[in-house]
Amino acid sequence: MSDSRVANIVDGSARTLAHAISQVENDAPDAESLLEAIYSHTGSAYRLGITGPPGAGKSTLVNELTIRYRQADEKVGIITVDPSSPFSGGAILGDRLRMGRHYLDDQVFIRSMATRGNHGGLARRSQEVGDLLDAAGFTIIIFETVGVGQAELDVMQAVDTTLVVLVPESGDDIQLMKAGIIEIADVFAINKADRDGAGQLHHLIDQMLTHKEPAGAWQTPVVETSAARGEGIDDLYQQLQRHHNFLSESGGKEHKRLDREKLRVQDQVASVLAGRFWTPERRIMLDSLLGSASPYQLARDIVMAGTVDGK
Amino acid sequence: MSDSRVANIVDGSARTLAHAISQVENDAPDAESLLEAIYSHTGSAYRLGITGPPGAGKSTLVNELTIRYRQADEKVGIITVDPSSPFSGGAILGDRLRMGRHYLDDQVFIRSMATRGNHGGLARRSQEVGDLLDAAGFTIIIFETVGVGQAELDVMQAVDTTLVVLVPESGDDIQLMKAGIIEIADVFAINKADRDGAGQLHHLIDQMLTHKEPAGAWQTPVVETSAARGEGIDDLYQQLQRHHNFLSESGGKEHKRLDREKLRVQDQVASVLAGRFWTPERRIMLDSLLGSASPYQLARDIVMAGTVDGK
Repeated sequence: MSDSRVANIVDGSARTLAHAISQVENDAPDAESLLEAIYSHTGSAYRLGITGPPGAGKSTLVNELTIRYRQADEKVGIITVDPSSPFSGGAILGDRLRMGRHYLDDQVFIRSMATRGNHGGLARRSQEVGDLLDAAGFTIIIFETVGVGQAELDVMQAVDTTLVVLVPESGDDIQLMKAGIIEIADVFAINKADRDGAGQLHHLIDQMLTHKEPAGAWQTPVVETSAARGEGIDDLYQQLQRHHNFLSESGGKEHKRLDREKLRVQDQVASVLAGRFWTPERRIMLDSLLGSASPYQLARDIVMAGTVDGK
Repeated sequence: MSDSRVANIVDGSARTLAHAISQVENDAPDAESLLEAIYSHTGSAYRLGITGPPGAGKSTLVNELTIRYRQADEKVGIITVDPSSPFSGGAILGDRLRMGRHYLDDQVFIRSMATRGNHGGLARRSQEVGDLLDAAGFTIIIFETVGVGQAELDVMQAVDTTLVVLVPESGDDIQLMKAGIIEIADVFAINKADRDGAGQLHHLIDQMLTHKEPAGAWQTPVVETSAARGEGIDDLYQQLQRHHNFLSESGGKEHKRLDREKLRVQDQVASVLAGRFWTPERRIMLDSLLGSASPYQLARDIVMAGTVDGK
């Protein structure tokens, strides 16, 4: 890894950064050494996750919040994670267009990520891109997800603050997803709150929150917004700042960072072990045995065959 | 594993089956040996996956299709997979209520599954429950997902036929998710097709399908339905049967089964390797080193420390 490349990223070269992100996305051979080299420059950014059903207006909210963060002189990185495009990938042009106002601001960096056929790897990769932005001096990193499935929740597990955005129409669905949604939310926004049913949804969330196990002294606030009209955004921004301060003061931010790293070490170990294990011989063995016994038996047989010395 | 338990499942004891499913869901100590014992009784069921955005009417379609399958004297297992409830889990009562008509039919078995905190394990576990139903003589196993995220797509990767259900309102979203949706769909249903925009969506899907790489000689059909009115269901049922026949005749069904098993052997090997690797000593080592170097470095250090003899 050339030191100049790390230096360029840390100095804020947008071009080097964009290239580095592409390498991480594509699992390029030297992506890992690059991530390792920038590691000592990471850890200071605040990571905000925004999730909610499609059509909840998340992008518009991200746009409005970005305006506030920029007014506070923060440097904002935005990563839009789209786990529903797993097979061919490619960035979502639409988000860039919607973010047009910020697209010309060099203190705002916007990137959309799709799965590109790497099942389960999107959450990890989006974190790695977050690390690159962190090293490049972005002080706020916003992870915006499309949808509320498992992969999105995995992304949310790696942020400091999770904002869940719902709309009055989400009332019916929230029953289905209540457990996950209530647990992960640090802050709720009811967007498009000028529509019918906002009060009802607010009441429903409040009720569900009474059953939530408290994370320290934090009480999950519910904010009504209308992002398209610019209403409620200042309140939402304040609540997010409050949670950020709460985390910093309670030591929760450092705790979350170490939790993130622990998972990454474990993932990395699993990948090292699998890489060592699946030699060409074992792959051939698997193909030839497939269907001859249960997957459990085959797994045992193949592991045993590779450990004749009892290791 | 007692032989009588396996015999009871194969003989169709609903009570033994329900208990076995709970054990799989809870990762009970002898779940694996049970799955292994029933393995030789699996492989004949047809696995149908149904996915699509919330509110597309998937449950109503499942209900209508179940009526057809029952008329054809099939024994139908229905597994509703809900990856958006990862933290507390629990079955979705609503689905059972909606399926009320079939709930009293002992040739129909309905089960809802949530993630229960096992990240990434839901797809595997739902397959294992599918195996139990397969061994119990269910000839059609329907996997219905809530939403269209990564976890849902993982579930779909393990079925014979994937039905993607959209509604006219999905037109806006489909642009966002087109790659994944188009690739996985063997059959499309445009449900609630009496609403505005159905023709437009149909046209859009047809256009996107022209770019799809064909899977053998199969052309993905697009069927307009109105499940609530019972319209188009016979056509949809015919298309699903056609795909089933296509798979059986082309050898695709056996091919898919072996692909599924390959992934399961690999998962199982990874779990065996991780189980062996993460000794109490290494866990302590990880905790003590956390934060002292990059996750990549730590992973290498811990792997190296465990392999002093070069293994």
